[in-house]
Amino acid sequence: MRIDSERINRNKSGMNKKGLDALICRLPENVLFLSGWWPLTGTSWVILTADGQTHLILPKCEAIEAQADGITDFSTFEWAHLKANPLEEIKSLIQHVAKEFGIEKGHIGIEENVEYIAPPLNIGEPSVPGWWSKQLLMEFLPNAKFSNATDLLNELRSLKTPSEIERIRIANEIAGFGLETFRANVKPGISEIELLALVNGAIAVKGSGYKGIKSARGFAQVSSGQGTENSWRPCLITSNRILQRGDIALLELAVVADGFWADNTRVVVTGGPDKKQQEIYEVVRKAQLAANEAIKIGVKMSEVDKAARDVINEAGYGKYFIHITGHGVGWRYHEFPPLLAPGNEALLQEGMVTSVEPGIYIPGFGGFRVEDNVAVTNNGIIELSTFNRDL
Amino acid sequence: MRIDSERINRNKSGMNKKGLDALICRLPENVLFLSGWWPLTGTSWVILTADGQTHLILPKCEAIEAQADGITDFSTFEWAHLKANPLEEIKSLIQHVAKEFGIEKGHIGIEENVEYIAPPLNIGEPSVPGWWSKQLLMEFLPNAKFSNATDLLNELRSLKTPSEIERIRIANEIAGFGLETFRANVKPGISEIELLALVNGAIAVKGSGYKGIKSARGFAQVSSGQGTENSWRPCLITSNRILQRGDIALLELAVVADGFWADNTRVVVTGGPDKKQQEIYEVVRKAQLAANEAIKIGVKMSEVDKAARDVINEAGYGKYFIHITGHGVGWRYHEFPPLLAPGNEALLQEGMVTSVEPGIYIPGFGGFRVEDNVAVTNNGIIELSTFNRDL
Repeated sequence: MRIDSERINRNKSGMNKKGLDALICRLPENVLFLSGWWPLTGTSWVILTADGQTHLILPKCEAIEAQADGITDFSTFEWAHLKANPLEEIKSLIQHVAKEFGIEKGHIGIEENVEYIAPPLNIGEPSVPGWWSKQLLMEFLPNAKFSNATDLLNELRSLKTPSEIERIRIANEIAGFGLETFRANVKPGISEIELLALVNGAIAVKGSGYKGIKSARGFAQVSSGQGTENSWRPCLITSNRILQRGDIALLELAVVADGFWADNTRVVVTGGPDKKQQEIYEVVRKAQLAANEAIKIGVKMSEVDKAARDVINEAGYGKYFIHITGHGVGWRYHEFPPLLAPGNEALLQEGMVTSVEPGIYIPGFGGFRVEDNVAVTNNGIIELSTFNRDL
Repeated sequence: MRIDSERINRNKSGMNKKGLDALICRLPENVLFLSGWWPLTGTSWVILTADGQTHLILPKCEAIEAQADGITDFSTFEWAHLKANPLEEIKSLIQHVAKEFGIEKGHIGIEENVEYIAPPLNIGEPSVPGWWSKQLLMEFLPNAKFSNATDLLNELRSLKTPSEIERIRIANEIAGFGLETFRANVKPGISEIELLALVNGAIAVKGSGYKGIKSARGFAQVSSGQGTENSWRPCLITSNRILQRGDIALLELAVVADGFWADNTRVVVTGGPDKKQQEIYEVVRKAQLAANEAIKIGVKMSEVDKAARDVINEAGYGKYFIHITGHGVGWRYHEFPPLLAPGNEALLQEGMVTSVEPGIYIPGFGGFRVEDNVAVTNNGIIELSTFNRDL
């Protein structure tokens, strides 16, 4: 994809407000954010100036895919090849571009504070701009001044443009292939890990090529039976436990589609819910609807959390809703702002994309959560995921 | 798993040689390396002193799994929970443990140079010890001295203990489930991405629970037909191209099993190879055998590369073998040392685990590679992967 001009304008304006002449970034999610190119191996660099000039420095082995994506403003260095001498090549490319763009002595924003990241396409080996990347840049451009631009980047990233929201919608649509596959296969005799493999497989197969997507991957976590009482935990391990009739089965699902992320949860009861399961789940779903109703430009994030929490409190399950109501999503699986949490006085703004995910987890009984992604617009919310939510 | 005493002894000795009183690490692969605990969400910290005291600081939500793994020396902080105040809790835990271990004023090694990483169990959102982690430690322990221990860690990591080699063997055995599934399903009419889904699915399903493994995941890359001429590229995108009769199909496969990595490649021709395909592939396999034969303690890494390259040169395909012969593997998909590359004068040492992966890539015709992992011992090599290599 090529980046939209609205995004470039906002990033220029952000840099100008902070007195930055350029941003030089290497984290895959920020390369995508600043240039429209989702790095395949994570070895790409992007330079974006405050007057809107952009240049990508890519490993030569990514050139075919970059060209196919319509990317034109890039140079390459050899990589993973006997002839490769990447440091020397990157140095001379960055120096050349900095000179051409007139930023060799400029004030340059970099990623100096990276703790949680989204992987590049090559998911098994993420890359990170660490201390070494900063040292390199200081050596390459000895007359420049460097500042930590992480906060600026997170702020700019939090307000998505309409075309970025469409990309997150596509990631959600692909997540839908996984959610449908989950629903179709939850039955007695199947294991959690088999469900995971079917869900991740459907996303890879049906997502690749869907609306032009090059690469789609799912990161399912499946819990079942009483294990769902712990399904709020981000460290959940999907086991080879076999589902029994009447078991709750909960799918937490992250999806990445060419660098844009979706985050959804569905819960299904094997053989259909009993009365108590249905009653609790309906409280969760009502809490989600109440949160959606509360989401408006200018509303405090804590108010949205309260809208969901009030429904659950009134039904008597308040002490079992032990996590926040939602978080930002799009450039990463979880990103902030927004954070729909008690006490968060920050206001919702146009273009924010948030998960809405109330849950009730009762020790000895099980857990229920429903999670969808919505975008905040001046006409209320856009629901980016609306797949079957029946228990 | 609990860590073996041989590993603790070597790490103590490494710290003593560098004048370090302790290591405090957060990168998931180093937490595993120093403590035996593979982080689930990447929020764990490990403290290991030069006299061998170890303590883990884990998010409370990982406590169930840590206990099940036999981990006992740990404290927890709340995480992903309404009550969570992780920074304050981690601060007081680190200060408490540092005091108890007598290292508050000590010389502490940290990870200050992290550029490529292995993800934690929660693969979609890796965590990284960045600038912020260092600032936190400097604030938590204001009287300590901090040094970059990345080189020490990489050196210690490069020499695996026998029990670590066994863990890498298990990852390779699980990779075998994927390689078998690939071989069984390569046929006209199937797509690259369908093969990928089957391979990754087999690894997750058959690997989970195999020899006590909690979590196994595959990261397959499938190329086919003329596309295999580019299959040396780490940025390969698995597409929905349908395989035709006579197509070469190449599987590059990384596998992680509870934090230990394997890296294998197999190539199969749809419907069986023709004479030229068979001839070229036999050169590649002979090159691999020649490299294996050359691998001995004290041999220059360049000599192993040369052994493989000579075979390919003599067969007249030298200009098509455009990459190195092998790299370290185990704590990550790719790690160094060793690096079996032209010009590398470093010597092989006992306990190194390396890929051996010669390849021939002919533009307009296709590519062939075979890749296995071997451990260097005082009795020659241990082959960690020996699955069917027929074309």
